[in-house]
Amino acid sequence: MQRSVSAQLTATVNTVSEVVLAIAVAHGPHRDERLAITLDGAPVTAEEVAAPHGGRLHLLTDVQPGTLEVDYRADIDGIAEIEPATQVQRIEYIRPSRYCDSDKLLPVARAEFGDLSGKALLDAVSSWVGSQLTYVSASSRPTDGAVDTYLLRQGVCRDFAHLVIALLRGLNVPARLASVYAPGLDPMDFHAVAEAYVDGAWWVVDATALAPRLSLLRIATGRDAADTAFLSTLSGSLSLQSMTVTATVDDLPGDDLTLLTALR
Amino acid sequence: MQRSVSAQLTATVNTVSEVVLAIAVAHGPHRDERLAITLDGAPVTAEEVAAPHGGRLHLLTDVQPGTLEVDYRADIDGIAEIEPATQVQRIEYIRPSRYCDSDKLLPVARAEFGDLSGKALLDAVSSWVGSQLTYVSASSRPTDGAVDTYLLRQGVCRDFAHLVIALLRGLNVPARLASVYAPGLDPMDFHAVAEAYVDGAWWVVDATALAPRLSLLRIATGRDAADTAFLSTLSGSLSLQSMTVTATVDDLPGDDLTLLTALR
Amino acid sequence: MQRSVSAQLTATVNTVSEVVLAIAVAHGPHRDERLAITLDGAPVTAEEVAAPHGGRLHLLTDVQPGTLEVDYRADIDGIAEIEPATQVQRIEYIRPSRYCDSDKLLPVARAEFGDLSGKALLDAVSSWVGSQLTYVSASSRPTDGAVDTYLLRQGVCRDFAHLVIALLRGLNVPARLASVYAPGLDPMDFHAVAEAYVDGAWWVVDATALAPRLSLLRIATGRDAADTAFLSTLSGSLSLQSMTVTATVDDLPGDDLTLLTALR
Amino acid sequence: MQRSVSAQLTATVNTVSEVVLAIAVAHGPHRDERLAITLDGAPVTAEEVAAPHGGRLHLLTDVQPGTLEVDYRADIDGIAEIEPATQVQRIEYIRPSRYCDSDKLLPVARAEFGDLSGKALLDAVSSWVGSQLTYVSASSRPTDGAVDTYLLRQGVCRDFAHLVIALLRGLNVPARLASVYAPGLDPMDFHAVAEAYVDGAWWVVDATALAPRLSLLRIATGRDAADTAFLSTLSGSLSLQSMTVTATVDDLPGDDLTLLTALR
Repeated sequence: MQRSVSAQLTATVNTVSEVVLAIAVAHGPHRDERLAITLDGAPVTAEEVAAPHGGRLHLLTDVQPGTLEVDYRADIDGIAEIEPATQVQRIEYIRPSRYCDSDKLLPVARAEFGDLSGKALLDAVSSWVGSQLTYVSASSRPTDGAVDTYLLRQGVCRDFAHLVIALLRGLNVPARLASVYAPGLDPMDFHAVAEAYVDGAWWVVDATALAPRLSLLRIATGRDAADTAFLSTLSGSLSLQSMTVTATVDDLPGDDLTLLTALR
Repeated sequence: MQRSVSAQLTATVNTVSEVVLAIAVAHGPHRDERLAITLDGAPVTAEEVAAPHGGRLHLLTDVQPGTLEVDYRADIDGIAEIEPATQVQRIEYIRPSRYCDSDKLLPVARAEFGDLSGKALLDAVSSWVGSQLTYVSASSRPTDGAVDTYLLRQGVCRDFAHLVIALLRGLNVPARLASVYAPGLDPMDFHAVAEAYVDGAWWVVDATALAPRLSLLRIATGRDAADTAFLSTLSGSLSLQSMTVTATVDDLPGDDLTLLTALR
Repeated sequence: MQRSVSAQLTATVNTVSEVVLAIAVAHGPHRDERLAITLDGAPVTAEEVAAPHGGRLHLLTDVQPGTLEVDYRADIDGIAEIEPATQVQRIEYIRPSRYCDSDKLLPVARAEFGDLSGKALLDAVSSWVGSQLTYVSASSRPTDGAVDTYLLRQGVCRDFAHLVIALLRGLNVPARLASVYAPGLDPMDFHAVAEAYVDGAWWVVDATALAPRLSLLRIATGRDAADTAFLSTLSGSLSLQSMTVTATVDDLPGDDLTLLTALR
Repeated sequence: MQRSVSAQLTATVNTVSEVVLAIAVAHGPHRDERLAITLDGAPVTAEEVAAPHGGRLHLLTDVQPGTLEVDYRADIDGIAEIEPATQVQRIEYIRPSRYCDSDKLLPVARAEFGDLSGKALLDAVSSWVGSQLTYVSASSRPTDGAVDTYLLRQGVCRDFAHLVIALLRGLNVPARLASVYAPGLDPMDFHAVAEAYVDGAWWVVDATALAPRLSLLRIATGRDAADTAFLSTLSGSLSLQSMTVTATVDDLPGDDLTLLTALR
């Protein structure tokens, strides 16, 4: 499989900032990539930081006020091997996290899905979330978690994924969030999906059903969106001004959401 | 420093369960220890699982209904070296987590402490939390996070630590939770404290001021209590019936909360 | 119908307080009653304040620190006429209130019960709440509202009533809370039930099913428990030390929760 | 004082609806007014419903799908007498309500303002809320209450008023919300302010300081925005398409927020 992706970001840096980018594709398949960053036109150097599950963050320290421009492009050939969960990861991904407050949703999860397990549970949660939620752009707050989304019944891709993850964890299924490039997504943007660990492997659950799962390309992986924001600061302050994302594949696959599919 | 600790737990296993114990002291100083686990009197084997920062979980799979008894004893000679945070840990521990919802507390943190940094910030947050909160046994819910504690103004050690951590993260200081054995704690129990990363090292912040920080002994370390529960299940259900914790040190140190002190 | 009720409260007044009692039966049937209040043994005078729907509050101003003892006894002969809702009451009781946050529960209410109305809706909500919640003494906080109860799936009578009310309001049914004396309740205590306005009359919905609805005796009525607390302060502080409630009826009726029944 | 106000609303009625308007000025000063309502151009009759504190709601029943147009105009001569609070109102307005969750904010209120009372308390709360919050259009959700606003530190006029009210109630001051026409407001819109009961009278507290308090003109009064929405439904569904509000006074007064001023 041949995939090409790109992301261009422009942000205003308001005060001296330490910036984290999570836009590069994760380690795995062969890639040919380029990352160019400038501040008011002058080149900026990024430190690549290894994150869990092959993730690759880029850290910019001491960024002065000005206009930050980021241009990332990559051509990817082949697919990734996904490692099974270690014991400690299995434990970690059953625990509640900031935006997947599975401990609060546990009684709801049990009441709705308590008699299901394995693949049937993944199917049921995916289709329930997909049918109960309405996808509404800009309908959620950055601080919203799965309980908020469950009550509001609307959100964007991260909210769909958070609710899927929280319901699954409430039923003892390890589940995590992956940010991805998503060929076929319309309108094109960064995308986020859930991954659930069943029968010794990680499977993609995307209740939005907005892009074929077979050609999704992993960026960052973590407990929830706190671990995968594409642009954030560790200190200081910036404002995103514009963003363009592209993602294409040589042959856009079909998808059948009732099949288990790994993110490769 | 010579420390001796023990924990005895008795729990009723209600349904076939997968149980996680986080009661063994973390890797580090030399230790002489014994862990004995029985179910209805018959020995049970635990798998030791390596957790972050030297943590050692014990995993019991396929535990049948019955009475589970756990007896852990350890004598520890010497102190641990604490590793500085890697870049990815520094990022991880600034992010909000389940019970340290720093993204929601950020405006409060800035309004109260926005003009402070470094050691002065740690002092200010520790004494503010210590003076604003009242320690009240059983006053919090397992699902309470830092915002809840901030509003309620009461809690137990984990709530104090969660609020400290959330306020510090809101001001860009990496902060994490450590569960510990705490010689001198009265009444004796498991204890939890915050660790904050300032000037290239991790420092203990214990707003409860209930035990000397110099003789605390690390068990588990993580983002918050979701990562450090001493007894929990990955599946199934159990009920804790009784628990006895002991922790002694050859020479109980004094403490001066205005000094930076690492957890060793 | 002949009913006899009583309530004895003992409270420690910590600072000079203004105290509100809502323990007297509402206007309606003929009653023979006695209210005796003392502070450290000396008589205290209460001002009777008329509250909505025949409620009768007793207000004690400038109560000095000491031991407050309240002794209320009443014999009630006959039943009350319940007035239909005025237009403004109908509007008021569809609105969300402090502990009946129907605006947040609205999507849940619609998803669960959106195709029902009238008596069938009351039946469905009552039996759903009764079967999904577990009655657990002291399991809720005074600040818990219907959303909290919905998520926790447990509570006491006020929580059951708040959830019933919030779900009904979310479906455009006016609903309110009544605190009552409840002959047959075991263990005996003050009780709280929901009233719903359907087909031009108020009907009792008690998802706890803990006492026959036909012999309930109204005390206070309002939007939720904020309007009906049996003992509260407008200023100052007190601590309840003990409370004894009795309620008997000459002939304890049976109950069939599928029938509409008014609180009389 | 001569004031002229108007409001024109256009809404799409999606399903058969029962609509409540709260746009007419409250009883009080002499008024010359006109209310014209049409559905797809045909006149619609409204029932006037008396609400608390002179409020006048207009109720439209059985409104069919179509375009609803409302045109209200009034000329007001003179000022209103404001009645002191009855005992039951004083009690009611100290209680927490849906969007003024004073029971949750109580510890914060005490920590910030616990040593103040009377006029000094009103001044302190008003200037604290005015300086801590940023007015940001469309920054809040309809379901946000005072705790949410306190944490977010931003909102619109109703959020400012809710936070003022919740803090005051937490300190035993009766406080309520009034929706008003506000000559001088820019941009012109409906406005909402808090009223606090101190020294036997109701005083206006407007932490937004966006319009002179002396010429505000009361529409509806209640516990919070649940009681004062200018356009809402009791059943059915509608979507507001456009709204124009005007409010003028013959001689726009100045304002000094440190003075107590009643809403007349």
